[in-house]
Amino acid sequence: MPNAFYGKLKNNSIYLDKNETSHLKIVRKNIGDTIDVFTGDGNIYNCIIESIKKKESILSIINTIKFKKEFNPNINLYVGMSKWEKMREIIEKAVELRVNSINIFKGKKSQLSYKNIEKFKKIIIEACKQSYLPLFPNLNFIEFQEIPIIDSIVFDFNNTYDFKSEIKKINKSINLIFGPDMGFSNEEKQFFSEKNFKITNLGNTVFRIETAVTYVLSTINYEFNRLNPIK
Amino acid sequence: MPNAFYGKLKNNSIYLDKNETSHLKIVRKNIGDTIDVFTGDGNIYNCIIESIKKKESILSIINTIKFKKEFNPNINLYVGMSKWEKMREIIEKAVELRVNSINIFKGKKSQLSYKNIEKFKKIIIEACKQSYLPLFPNLNFIEFQEIPIIDSIVFDFNNTYDFKSEIKKINKSINLIFGPDMGFSNEEKQFFSEKNFKITNLGNTVFRIETAVTYVLSTINYEFNRLNPIK
Repeated sequence: MPNAFYGKLKNNSIYLDKNETSHLKIVRKNIGDTIDVFTGDGNIYNCIIESIKKKESILSIINTIKFKKEFNPNINLYVGMSKWEKMREIIEKAVELRVNSINIFKGKKSQLSYKNIEKFKKIIIEACKQSYLPLFPNLNFIEFQEIPIIDSIVFDFNNTYDFKSEIKKINKSINLIFGPDMGFSNEEKQFFSEKNFKITNLGNTVFRIETAVTYVLSTINYEFNRLNPIK
Repeated sequence: MPNAFYGKLKNNSIYLDKNETSHLKIVRKNIGDTIDVFTGDGNIYNCIIESIKKKESILSIINTIKFKKEFNPNINLYVGMSKWEKMREIIEKAVELRVNSINIFKGKKSQLSYKNIEKFKKIIIEACKQSYLPLFPNLNFIEFQEIPIIDSIVFDFNNTYDFKSEIKKINKSINLIFGPDMGFSNEEKQFFSEKNFKITNLGNTVFRIETAVTYVLSTINYEFNRLNPIK
């Protein structure tokens, strides 16, 4: 499958920024060529290149194809702020494994505090282009206290609930909650336990946070045939 | 869980090399302290540090604990040579997800040719130390023609067999076969098809090779409760 470009829709035309314009040049696209563009809204815009300037390119839309895939159940990922390389891998994998939203919070044991959400959006855009996902997952910075209780599973070393049975019970939507790379603090654990969150773990192994996230996302996609295998 | 050290067993003592000796110093271990050492043979050697030199340390064994976990089914991973960063991630994830062997071949479309197996062994040792696995997976460089036919699944875009039903059918052992990052060549695809290999794919998504490997390893661990959740 061909990779796509990222652009913005304005007055029925598509605009590529400086970065995407350099990408156009790298792959030797010229005026008159057609390319696929994602804006993140779920459409694949098949476009013809009208002009290539230094800082932007302007394209006219030939055809708009609605991305028909719905991924069920809905997956909302909640992750505590961790080292940048881990955050990057988690976001890339979350896009490849088709999560619906990525929600990032600062945990008590987070060693970094990210302020700039744009840095994370860029990773999402690149991952969506590469893995051909025209509907970008929502990205939010949230407070720890905003983590929802209903339809949620917290991953921690405690094992109140059995992982596999909880996965099988997922209905329309699930919130998957992972601590930062350094884990949850005692206060946070107490918060989950007082509010009666479902807490589970992934078995008798030592996973890094990024592996744990990919593991859980893989099992849900598998259990519910969520990626709709090509027939 | 504490991380472990890597050492070699000789005349009933454990020897740490230069690299592991620096690691000892970094974590401020001294003569008389006890540490856990893996040699890769499946034992956890609980040792007391007898001497720390520039290039080696010598330890005496206090207690040998046999690692009792068996991971069923047996998973043998076959991967085509790919970019080094991808190989590294695949091996790290394979250790965390407890594969039994890693078998690396040069595919027709492999852009790199690795000769030095020691480089790969080092990744395995570090990953086993970090994820606390005293029984190191076997590592082999093999020829493409040596890929076994029996109990094998090839992952490719073709979809002769349904992924989920093939996973559920796994009995005692499974060989998972992934092409290099650039995919299988036409000759290789023909080889699989002529020999009646089972070929499947992972659904209507675009996975990078390292994500595909982690995805499949996760689903097998999940399906067979292979990681034995802590009760």
